Amino acid sequence: MMKFRPLHDRVLVRRIEQEEKTAGGIIIPDTAKEKPMEGEVIAIGSGTRLEDGKVMPLDVKVGDRILFGKWSGTEVKFGNQEYLVMKESDIMGIVESKAA
Amino acid sequence: MMKFRPLHDRVLVRRIEQEEKTAGGIIIPDTAKEKPMEGEVIAIGSGTRLEDGKVMPLDVKVGDRILFGKWSGTEVKFGNQEYLVMKESDIMGIVESKAA
Amino acid sequence: MMKFRPLHDRVLVRRIEQEEKTAGGIIIPDTAKEKPMEGEVIAIGSGTRLEDGKVMPLDVKVGDRILFGKWSGTEVKFGNQEYLVMKESDIMGIVESKAA
Amino acid sequence: MMKFRPLHDRVLVRRIEQEEKTAGGIIIPDTAKEKPMEGEVIAIGSGTRLEDGKVMPLDVKVGDRILFGKWSGTEVKFGNQEYLVMKESDIMGIVESKAA
Amino acid sequence: MMKFRPLHDRVLVRRIEQEEKTAGGIIIPDTAKEKPMEGEVIAIGSGTRLEDGKVMPLDVKVGDRILFGKWSGTEVKFGNQEYLVMKESDIMGIVESKAA
Amino acid sequence: MMKFRPLHDRVLVRRIEQEEKTAGGIIIPDTAKEKPMEGEVIAIGSGTRLEDGKVMPLDVKVGDRILFGKWSGTEVKFGNQEYLVMKESDIMGIVESKAA
Amino acid sequence: MMKFRPLHDRVLVRRIEQEEKTAGGIIIPDTAKEKPMEGEVIAIGSGTRLEDGKVMPLDVKVGDRILFGKWSGTEVKFGNQEYLVMKESDIMGIVESKAA
Repeated sequence: MMKFRPLHDRVLVRRIEQEEKTAGGIIIPDTAKEKPMEGEVIAIGSGTRLEDGKVMPLDVKVGDRILFGKWSGTEVKFGNQEYLVMKESDIMGIVESKAA
Repeated sequence: MMKFRPLHDRVLVRRIEQEEKTAGGIIIPDTAKEKPMEGEVIAIGSGTRLEDGKVMPLDVKVGDRILFGKWSGTEVKFGNQEYLVMKESDIMGIVESKAA
Repeated sequence: MMKFRPLHDRVLVRRIEQEEKTAGGIIIPDTAKEKPMEGEVIAIGSGTRLEDGKVMPLDVKVGDRILFGKWSGTEVKFGNQEYLVMKESDIMGIVESKAA
Repeated sequence: MMKFRPLHDRVLVRRIEQEEKTAGGIIIPDTAKEKPMEGEVIAIGSGTRLEDGKVMPLDVKVGDRILFGKWSGTEVKFGNQEYLVMKESDIMGIVESKAA
Repeated sequence: MMKFRPLHDRVLVRRIEQEEKTAGGIIIPDTAKEKPMEGEVIAIGSGTRLEDGKVMPLDVKVGDRILFGKWSGTEVKFGNQEYLVMKESDIMGIVESKAA
Repeated sequence: MMKFRPLHDRVLVRRIEQEEKTAGGIIIPDTAKEKPMEGEVIAIGSGTRLEDGKVMPLDVKVGDRILFGKWSGTEVKFGNQEYLVMKESDIMGIVESKAA
Repeated sequence: MMKFRPLHDRVLVRRIEQEEKTAGGIIIPDTAKEKPMEGEVIAIGSGTRLEDGKVMPLDVKVGDRILFGKWSGTEVKFGNQEYLVMKESDIMGIVESKAA
C-alpha cells in the first residue's frame, strides 16, 4: 500500500463525488457538472512551521469531511485513485453532519 | 441536520434577501437586482491563528446580522440552502438595529 | 433607529456634499461634479487587532470631519441614507476648522 | 482659518511653483512645464503606528522644504489653495539651502 | 564525481520517470505524456534561515521520494544527468510506499 | 550653496559619466550610449527605521563611488546639476579602485 | 586593479563559459547557445541585515563555484571583463566537484 506524508501545512484529500440530479431526476454526465468541493482528509502534515522554529499543528485530522474551493490544491494520482494535495488554509471548514 | 464548522478566521453566513421595490412599488424580479450585502452569521471558526501559536477569537458571534462586500466569500450549498463562507476580515460590521 | 458597529479598524462615514459653484455662481448639477472627499465619522470600530492579540484604538472619533480618497470605502445604505464603510488607513486626516 | 491634522504618517504639503525660464528667458506657460516636485510641509501626523502600539514620530517638521516624486500624494483643496496629502515615505528629502 | 550543495532551503532532485501505458498497454512516447511529478532527493541545503539568524533544518532528507508540482524548480544538468533544484516549500510530500 | 538631506534610507547620487569610445576611437554622442551606472554618493539619510523605532545606519558614506541599476532612483535637479535620489537597497556595491 | 565590494546580501560573480558541443563535435557559436548558469564568486557582501540591526553572514565565499538562474543578477563591466551582481538568494547552490 502507498503511504503519502504531506509536508508542513499540507493535507492529502480524496474528493467525494456528489450525485447531482436535475429536477427530473436525470443524472448529469460527468463533464457537464461542476467539480464537487467536498472531500475526506486522508493524510496530514505535521503543521505550520513558525518563525521561531516551532510547529503549530493542523486543525483538521484524518477522516474529517471538509469543504474546499473548486480550484484548490494540486491533483496527484496513486494507482488509479486521484487525490488533491492542498494547504490547510485552502480548507474552508469541516462538515460534521451525516446528511450533507 | 448538517453542521458546518468553519476553520480558523472563517464564518458561515446566510444571506438575507432584501425586498427591493421601485418607486412605484413594483418588486424587481430576482435577476434584475443587485446581490444583497446583508447576512446572518450561522457558524464561526475558533479564531485567527497567531504566529506564536495562540488563537485570537473572532469578533462576530452566531446570530449577528452583518454587512459584507458583494463579492466576498465562497458560495456553498447544504441541501437546498445556499450559504457563504468568508473570512471575518471580509465583514464590514454588525447591524444592531431592528429597522435596517 | 439603525445602529451599525464597524469591525476592527473600520469606520462608518457619511459624505458631506459640498456646494460647488462655477465662477458665474451657477450650481453644477450632480452628475457633472466630482464626488466630494469630505465626510463625518458616524461610527468607529474597536481598533486594529495586533499580532499579539491586543487592540490598538483608532485615531478618529465619532463626529470627526475627515478627508478621504475619492475611491475609498464601500457604499452601504441604511433606509434612504448612503454611507461609506472604510478602513481608518484610508482616511487622510481630520479637518478641524469651521470654514473649510 | 482651516486647520488640517493628517493621520499617522501623513503630511500636508503646499507645492512651491518654480519659475522656469528657457535659455532666452521666456517663461514657459503653465501647461508646458513639468509639475514641480518641491513643497513646504504645512502639517504633519503624529507618526507611524508600530505593531506594539507605539508611535514612531516623523522625521519632517512643519516648515521643512521637501522634495517629492511627481506623482506622490493626493490633491486636496481648502478654499482656493491646493495642497497634497502624502505619506512621509513618499518624501525623498529635505532641501536645506536658500538658493535651491 | 560532481557534488552539489544546495543553499539554504533548497534541495536537489532527480526526477523519476514513470512508465505510462494506455489502456491497451501501448507506451506513450515521451513527448506525448505529461511530465512526472515524482523525484528522489539527492542533496539538501542546511535549512531555512530565520530572521534571528538561526537555521530551521529541512523536513526532507537525502533519498526521500517526493512529489512536487509540475512546474516547480529549475533544471540543472551535471554531465548527462538532469536534475531539478527547488525550494522545500515546493515539495508537496513524501511517498513512503514501495508500490506507488 | 544648496544642501539636501535625504530621508531615512535614501542617498543623493551624482552620476559619473563614462567616456565611451568605439573600437575606432570615435566618441559616441550622448543620445546613442547607454546611461552609465556609476555614481558618487553626495549625501545620505540617517538610516533605515526599524520596527522598534531604532535606526540602522546606512552602509555607504559620502564620497563612495557606487554602482546602481540603470533605472534606479528619481532624478532631481539643483541649479544646473542633475542628481539621483535612490534607496540604499538600490545600490549594488562600492567600487573601491582608482582604475575602474 | 579594480575592487568591488557588494552591499549587504549581494555577491559579484564571474560567469564560467561552458564549451558546448553538438553530437558531431561542432562547437556551437556564441549566439546560438543558451547562457551558462555557472559562475565563480569574486566578491561578497557583509551579509543580510536583520530587523534588529544585526547582520547574518552569507553562506557563499569567494572562490565558490555556484549555479544560478539564467536571468539572475545585473550585468556590470569592469574594464573588458563582464560580471554579474546578484543577491545570495538567487544562488541555487555550490558545485563542489572538479568534473562538473
